[in-house]
Amino acid sequence: MDSTMMDHPLSTQMIFERGERLFASSRIIGFDGATTTVTPYAQVAKRARRLASALSALGLRQGEVLGTYCWNTQAHLEAYLAVPAMGCVLHTLNVRLPAPHLEFVIGHADDRVLLVDAPLLEALAAVLPALPRVEHLIVNGPSPGNIAGFRGRVHDYEALIAGHEPMGAFPQLRESDAAAVCYTSGTTGLPKGVVYSHRSVFLHSLASMAADCFAISNRDRILMVPPMFHANAWGMPFSGWLAGSDMILPGRFLQPDNLARLIAAERPTLMAAVPTILNDLLQAHARAPIDLSSFRTIVSGGSAVSSTLIERVKAAWGVDVVQGWGMTETSPMCVLSFPPRDAKGADEVQWRAKSGRPVPGMHVRIVDDADQPLPEDGETTGHLQLKGPWVSGGYLREAPDAAPLTADGWLRTGDVGRIDELGFVQITDRAKDLIKSGGEWISSVELEIGIAALDGVIEAAVIAVPDPRWEERPLALVVLDQTTRPEPAALRAELLGRFARYMIPEYWAIVETLPRTSVGKIDKKQLREKFDGGDLSILVESRFGAGEGN
Amino acid sequence: MDSTMMDHPLSTQMIFERGERLFASSRIIGFDGATTTVTPYAQVAKRARRLASALSALGLRQGEVLGTYCWNTQAHLEAYLAVPAMGCVLHTLNVRLPAPHLEFVIGHADDRVLLVDAPLLEALAAVLPALPRVEHLIVNGPSPGNIAGFRGRVHDYEALIAGHEPMGAFPQLRESDAAAVCYTSGTTGLPKGVVYSHRSVFLHSLASMAADCFAISNRDRILMVPPMFHANAWGMPFSGWLAGSDMILPGRFLQPDNLARLIAAERPTLMAAVPTILNDLLQAHARAPIDLSSFRTIVSGGSAVSSTLIERVKAAWGVDVVQGWGMTETSPMCVLSFPPRDAKGADEVQWRAKSGRPVPGMHVRIVDDADQPLPEDGETTGHLQLKGPWVSGGYLREAPDAAPLTADGWLRTGDVGRIDELGFVQITDRAKDLIKSGGEWISSVELEIGIAALDGVIEAAVIAVPDPRWEERPLALVVLDQTTRPEPAALRAELLGRFARYMIPEYWAIVETLPRTSVGKIDKKQLREKFDGGDLSILVESRFGAGEGN
Repeated sequence: MDSTMMDHPLSTQMIFERGERLFASSRIIGFDGATTTVTPYAQVAKRARRLASALSALGLRQGEVLGTYCWNTQAHLEAYLAVPAMGCVLHTLNVRLPAPHLEFVIGHADDRVLLVDAPLLEALAAVLPALPRVEHLIVNGPSPGNIAGFRGRVHDYEALIAGHEPMGAFPQLRESDAAAVCYTSGTTGLPKGVVYSHRSVFLHSLASMAADCFAISNRDRILMVPPMFHANAWGMPFSGWLAGSDMILPGRFLQPDNLARLIAAERPTLMAAVPTILNDLLQAHARAPIDLSSFRTIVSGGSAVSSTLIERVKAAWGVDVVQGWGMTETSPMCVLSFPPRDAKGADEVQWRAKSGRPVPGMHVRIVDDADQPLPEDGETTGHLQLKGPWVSGGYLREAPDAAPLTADGWLRTGDVGRIDELGFVQITDRAKDLIKSGGEWISSVELEIGIAALDGVIEAAVIAVPDPRWEERPLALVVLDQTTRPEPAALRAELLGRFARYMIPEYWAIVETLPRTSVGKIDKKQLREKFDGGDLSILVESRFGAGEGN
Repeated sequence: MDSTMMDHPLSTQMIFERGERLFASSRIIGFDGATTTVTPYAQVAKRARRLASALSALGLRQGEVLGTYCWNTQAHLEAYLAVPAMGCVLHTLNVRLPAPHLEFVIGHADDRVLLVDAPLLEALAAVLPALPRVEHLIVNGPSPGNIAGFRGRVHDYEALIAGHEPMGAFPQLRESDAAAVCYTSGTTGLPKGVVYSHRSVFLHSLASMAADCFAISNRDRILMVPPMFHANAWGMPFSGWLAGSDMILPGRFLQPDNLARLIAAERPTLMAAVPTILNDLLQAHARAPIDLSSFRTIVSGGSAVSSTLIERVKAAWGVDVVQGWGMTETSPMCVLSFPPRDAKGADEVQWRAKSGRPVPGMHVRIVDDADQPLPEDGETTGHLQLKGPWVSGGYLREAPDAAPLTADGWLRTGDVGRIDELGFVQITDRAKDLIKSGGEWISSVELEIGIAALDGVIEAAVIAVPDPRWEERPLALVVLDQTTRPEPAALRAELLGRFARYMIPEYWAIVETLPRTSVGKIDKKQLREKFDGGDLSILVESRFGAGEGN
């Protein structure tokens, strides 16, 4: 028997057109650090259609790539809407990439047109002379007219779109067509390109609206905190538009004071944010109270969210934090930590502190080194693997045999973790960040959360250092509260009883700050380089008997 | 640029396995008219896997069809889970079909195995002798052993599944494979088969979870009122299982007293129900108070939901009614009437009384007789057409040129309506139920709602009758409250000022009841036959000047 369903390709055009048609009066709120602008969807959609016509007139053809080098600005959102809908590919460039990587990804994706926020122009301009295939640079904000060493044309964004009529009907696309490309931050080697299809973007957006996912709705006001150049800002520019939510775009003004002001003025109902942002807001709140009670939910992820942080946010503002875990390769929504429905009170927090359960459509498993599934008993640790309709099966222009898939089609995440009886995933570490001590795995993430929860500790990172007896041992790097400054010996004593003795670090270093990657995660690669070999004896402030209790 | 997304087919297996894996303790509640049974998902899933093994052992091969002739029972749900997941096709037979139609659809779909609730066996058994290709009959409940004239084997459901081990891995399917087939009730001609694909069922289920759709979540307790043989009960057996909701299956016990008892005992949070059921519950409430306050929302559709009904439900129990409109051909969720977010109070009800706005993924338009789009201004009336990934583009084993699609791929619904500036659809009538009077269209549905809202009227139907001057005029058939029994002249007077004068019926008939179709809608075909030609003069009780004010 054949299905009688019509062949209707899933596409970002369905997203664009639904927001435009049904939610003309929903609002996009911009912020320049001082004042806000309010633009209704109807006008944003019209501007996006003008942009599509303009790009077409510049010669950007179906399947070709436009790169954006922007913060969370309205022009960036207009590119999100216009570029895939017209059949081109949106390449969101990470504005924190070092110049060699920036040059590499623009060339590798073959960007023909670039859109840049004016304040970011200088960094981008530096690499343009090496990129002869870039034909047009569109500047959102004051434009210099021309750029040394750049042979293409420079355009002013507003003048460009003002000069074109809104594009009418968009071309017919296949759902497997590329819609957007985002490069992984690449903690090792060069960045790698993940190419989202129209189908995957639509499915991810629809799933984001599910009541047990982000539950994004027409009544929401989304504060767009995650950078729109990183995994599509959790997909919220697409899912928010599909649902007709108001979206508040803070530009590059993500400092706690700016966010607090925006939140007070705009009363957002939803945001996603890395734990660092929540910690910043809590610290600001401790200095002078701020009000986050307008949020119905805060989604947090990007690195592990501790129960302490979840409890502090709840205590400060009565807001529930839902933890999420995902990757650029998963669009990124993959697992979310809604507690089981009968969990209550303190019990609830323990569930929220897990990485989460797979959202509808997503499949997870843990395996051994031979890709054989392991028991999901909450105790066995293994390599986490994924499958689903918005999961990447490879990278742009990488040989198929370099694809990170198992023989049976699961994505190797490079993370290790456990899965419990209820299906909750607990990521315990990046495989390469694990400390292999005397045949046991020690999770750097679990130690970091445990140490960061101690009084007087602001942040902690744990990396492996060589050890003559145990092969590797953990080194704890801690940022201390300058008023109390607890001693490492005291911190270590507090860990006894919370961790098995063999897990507790005997190497400690007190540092001023921890280095971060371009997406705001602790840069363990840099830490490992710094503490490699000879440097160790200098920087370690406190050393206990190596391998004690192992 | 090619997308790097993995090829992951959408399927009902994703629904089955998510509910089974993540929500083992969610509950299926059965009801036999007196007592309830509670079965956790884990056990239901295991029983469904046993059923899959049993069907496989009976010889049901991939792509073959199992017909169900059941009410909303646990065995029926188990078939929903097992049959598509094992790669076979679930054919839900309407238990109200007349025998010739029943025989036709079983033969037309080529059902090889039938599952029947024991209390329904007699009606099914009557057609079996004419269906030699049916090899197995599985009886859910006391089984007679053999059936006169049936050459296949008869099985007891419980004995059958007890005799087989749960099926392990399901076969790999393509997303375009058929998952289920449902025949339209066919107010004209023979029923026609709509065949849902794995893709369409998954997408419809995911969309049903959206916050602005049914918002089905793990916290819900769904009272399954729509028959599971009719458009998959609004898809809720699938979407509820995907979300891990408790599901309360009332069997065939849909009388107001039974429902009221179930609701009081089980405190459901969500149901979908035709307006008749809500009217029944309101009438029961007027006799002796019942409590529906546990519902977070009631979705109503199947026929137009009046603002009066919405207001009465809100006044009685504080529950919001969301109107939905869809068809067997749309899986069926298509448009839902959530008010615009800034609508308040009384204003809200006017929006809820519209058919609704398209859910994410669905497209609607109105066209003229030449399929040319008409203005969406809230005033222009045209033929409603649809497009979307869970819309049928044809019917089973019908020639492609019989497909109800326009040249540009839109489904002709056979309904007429308006679309307003905000995208709200208002279905005004079935095209064939419109009254064409002196070159104007009069909506039978709008008149029915207006008349039913009058004091002393319980129900109303309006059909066209021939008129020498105006071609057609409306005939109002009314069921009256026996205590007040208002006069047609008085009712007619009340309509003045609410409708244009040319719309107001001058032909009236008072009837005891209105005939209904197999899915509970007023059977206008039967009414038209009854009031055709000569009979009219006898049955009309009250006649005003024909065409007065036209």
